[in-house]
Amino acid sequence: MAIHPVILCGGSGTRLWPLSRQSYPKQFVPLVGEETLFQASARRLSGRDFAAPLILTGSDFRFIVVEQLQSIGIDPGAILIEPEGRNTAPAILAAAMYLAKSDPDAVMLVAPSDHVLPDTEAFHDAVQQGLAAVEQGRLVTFGIHPAGPNTGYGYLELAAEPDGTGAAVALKSFVEKPCIDTAKTMVDAGNFLWNAGIFLFRVGDVLDAFNQLAADLVAPVQGAVDGAKPDLGFLRLSPEPWQNCPDISVDYAVMEKATNLSVVPYSGGWSDLGGWDAVWSESQPTDRGVVLSGSATSIDCANSLLRSDSENLELVGIGLENIIAVAMNDAVLVADKSRAQDVKLAVSALKSKNAPQATDFPKDHRPWGWFESLVSGSRFQVKRIHVHPGASLSLQSHFHRSEHWVVVQGTARVTLNDASKLVTENESVYIPVGSVHRLENPGKVPLVVIEVQTGTFMGEDDITRYDDKYARGEGAKG
Amino acid sequence: MAIHPVILCGGSGTRLWPLSRQSYPKQFVPLVGEETLFQASARRLSGRDFAAPLILTGSDFRFIVVEQLQSIGIDPGAILIEPEGRNTAPAILAAAMYLAKSDPDAVMLVAPSDHVLPDTEAFHDAVQQGLAAVEQGRLVTFGIHPAGPNTGYGYLELAAEPDGTGAAVALKSFVEKPCIDTAKTMVDAGNFLWNAGIFLFRVGDVLDAFNQLAADLVAPVQGAVDGAKPDLGFLRLSPEPWQNCPDISVDYAVMEKATNLSVVPYSGGWSDLGGWDAVWSESQPTDRGVVLSGSATSIDCANSLLRSDSENLELVGIGLENIIAVAMNDAVLVADKSRAQDVKLAVSALKSKNAPQATDFPKDHRPWGWFESLVSGSRFQVKRIHVHPGASLSLQSHFHRSEHWVVVQGTARVTLNDASKLVTENESVYIPVGSVHRLENPGKVPLVVIEVQTGTFMGEDDITRYDDKYARGEGAKG
Repeated sequence: MAIHPVILCGGSGTRLWPLSRQSYPKQFVPLVGEETLFQASARRLSGRDFAAPLILTGSDFRFIVVEQLQSIGIDPGAILIEPEGRNTAPAILAAAMYLAKSDPDAVMLVAPSDHVLPDTEAFHDAVQQGLAAVEQGRLVTFGIHPAGPNTGYGYLELAAEPDGTGAAVALKSFVEKPCIDTAKTMVDAGNFLWNAGIFLFRVGDVLDAFNQLAADLVAPVQGAVDGAKPDLGFLRLSPEPWQNCPDISVDYAVMEKATNLSVVPYSGGWSDLGGWDAVWSESQPTDRGVVLSGSATSIDCANSLLRSDSENLELVGIGLENIIAVAMNDAVLVADKSRAQDVKLAVSALKSKNAPQATDFPKDHRPWGWFESLVSGSRFQVKRIHVHPGASLSLQSHFHRSEHWVVVQGTARVTLNDASKLVTENESVYIPVGSVHRLENPGKVPLVVIEVQTGTFMGEDDITRYDDKYARGEGAKG
Repeated sequence: MAIHPVILCGGSGTRLWPLSRQSYPKQFVPLVGEETLFQASARRLSGRDFAAPLILTGSDFRFIVVEQLQSIGIDPGAILIEPEGRNTAPAILAAAMYLAKSDPDAVMLVAPSDHVLPDTEAFHDAVQQGLAAVEQGRLVTFGIHPAGPNTGYGYLELAAEPDGTGAAVALKSFVEKPCIDTAKTMVDAGNFLWNAGIFLFRVGDVLDAFNQLAADLVAPVQGAVDGAKPDLGFLRLSPEPWQNCPDISVDYAVMEKATNLSVVPYSGGWSDLGGWDAVWSESQPTDRGVVLSGSATSIDCANSLLRSDSENLELVGIGLENIIAVAMNDAVLVADKSRAQDVKLAVSALKSKNAPQATDFPKDHRPWGWFESLVSGSRFQVKRIHVHPGASLSLQSHFHRSEHWVVVQGTARVTLNDASKLVTENESVYIPVGSVHRLENPGKVPLVVIEVQTGTFMGEDDITRYDDKYARGEGAKG
């Protein structure tokens, strides 16, 4: 029996700024190891008994999802676009309704895309244990053996202490994020596990649960799924019904009220990387507790994370104790590790001074590739533009800027008004104000273009679009 | 009677890395306030009774000296180029010999270019006190009232405790950098001051002292001065005799042996900015001890310095205590403030991994302006080039790279083989491999060019020079 992975990758937090930003949230970043958290999640839920994954994400991230899956050779079963984030209940219900169309008896495994589970085999074993319970009509959740009396997680109270076989145990109750004393009592008791937000159930069973326990979600989500429109390989949930969905977590909407819940105890490693302190501890610190990443150098540091995320940016720490230092091209965070949960304050502070670093990632990902701004002056801007093989920017024009393109890698096909020509390495082309133009990569290797813009206004919204293979509207991004 | 300032600005330390680097040492950086330390030094020694300053510097820094003096409207009397750094004794002797040619009775004031003396008036008063002693044939040094038992400075033992009038007191002895107990004893005694390396004397008197006490320096320095060659407004000391000079400080060579030394006690503020802790304390920290500079944000920090030295680079500190964080485009330092003296270890560490950041400043200053690398790939590099009005790069060619130039500000005159033309904002020109070319700014405003280089080798040493108004040789820099 195939298991359908449902990977939730919509939302974004601010606690891993500057690496995680609204425009490029943490699941798409290689925070621990070589792959991104999303890629690691997709890989964990592939092979063996797994069907192709169903991805739920936001419109802004759809091309990142495709690109990241492509680069690890995983084909998505479908990518559902949520018109707006509505928390986990509507997303899971939409996934269940989508899967029900082809098979109401299908089993679905719901997982966040931004957690770390280093031991894939242990996780697969736990899924097997869950299947046994699913076959008896149970809704299964996975409970993490607490590493300590953490007050940042909800807890699952089990009807009995796990027997050590890994078999599912009936759930007695959900416990919301506790105070420290309650947390200590629970950890000592032995029958309380952390709630990791990973679920396994038969599609029909979870639909029954929604119908009984969260009936107000059913009509709007059904409307959004029934009205969904295919769009270049994505499936866009219908926005009008979707906006009538309450913004609610699946725990509140269904799980806390359901009486047929079982918990698979999981004792493998797990982290939700809820802050830089967690990234530090998941990154296998040295004996002195140092984690280095990128061009970072530690001199007599201890219990610290030093991370440079940019080529050609050297980060050096001297005599640091308990410090998180993360350096990027456009932003640097230095925080006491005990204050990891306050990184969101950095984002608020930058927002209040209108710094783009609060929300925007230096590399701007687009369906055709990405670009980054190298330097900007009062009347010019220089960008590096990276176009995937076979990809193409829209046919467009600008009112306020001219563009000089120099090809430094690969070959471009450039359309300029009525003419089209190939421009290859070490050749350049000039795009005057107002002319209708398009940049394409007809080749088999990435195309890299240095673009020098001059004019009075360089905003991304000075764009008139005539034709776009990615079906983006006028004024939409690049 | 005019006083001839002699400003020493040759050497470079590593303790203020990454702002101070071998290619651009700390005296040329605005570390405290708007002006650079060198500019502040030149301004402090201008006006009133001061003649135009005599500058001693190294060949690499000569155009920086000119540019920085120009921008504050000070004309140098002369700029002597030391073929190699030989510490202070040969430099001061060369200055004295140079001044002696026009007036052996001239009074010279020798000062480092990298110290902070915030109270110019107090300093000028101290110089007046010194002049009274100079008139009696004394060699005058300035002694700083110790702010504490610092073991990083040499001390001057005075024959008597200063009487509070500011008048010079005879020197009893020099004390080398002491241990902490000795330092405490000296500070308690009241007749010990810090040796700041600032001197005032008649040219004839210091020449006498050298003749008597350091005779081995006289012949080589005289040879270097007599053989000095004018070069575009600089005076290059003759390298052959100069290389026979011992590398020795004026304290060791002369002052510690001289019997006619007087000390002017100085109680105004003074710092040699010998580390980031000193920059912090000289930068008027807030009540909580925070110093912010550039796009830096402090959230609950105390006793810390947060400095961003790059446009568009946001630095945020959270919950830091006693931390120095300095962020630049190519390098970030995060150090415990108590370890400020170990910043030199960062430079060694980067040197040992061949990182250019160890020694090279991201902006490369040249006689005609400066450039910085914006991005480099395996077969391309993008630079921003800033050319001063009226300035001109050499007539040159490259074996391994082509160049695309896009003018984004100002107007260029471009020579390409036998032709020359004006290229203005939003125009571009292509320089093929091997072609002989020159970039000039014939205008009245700075010229800014974006240069895209493509080819197999982008090194600065791929340059054949045909003509250079700054008289630089083949293979020399840009």
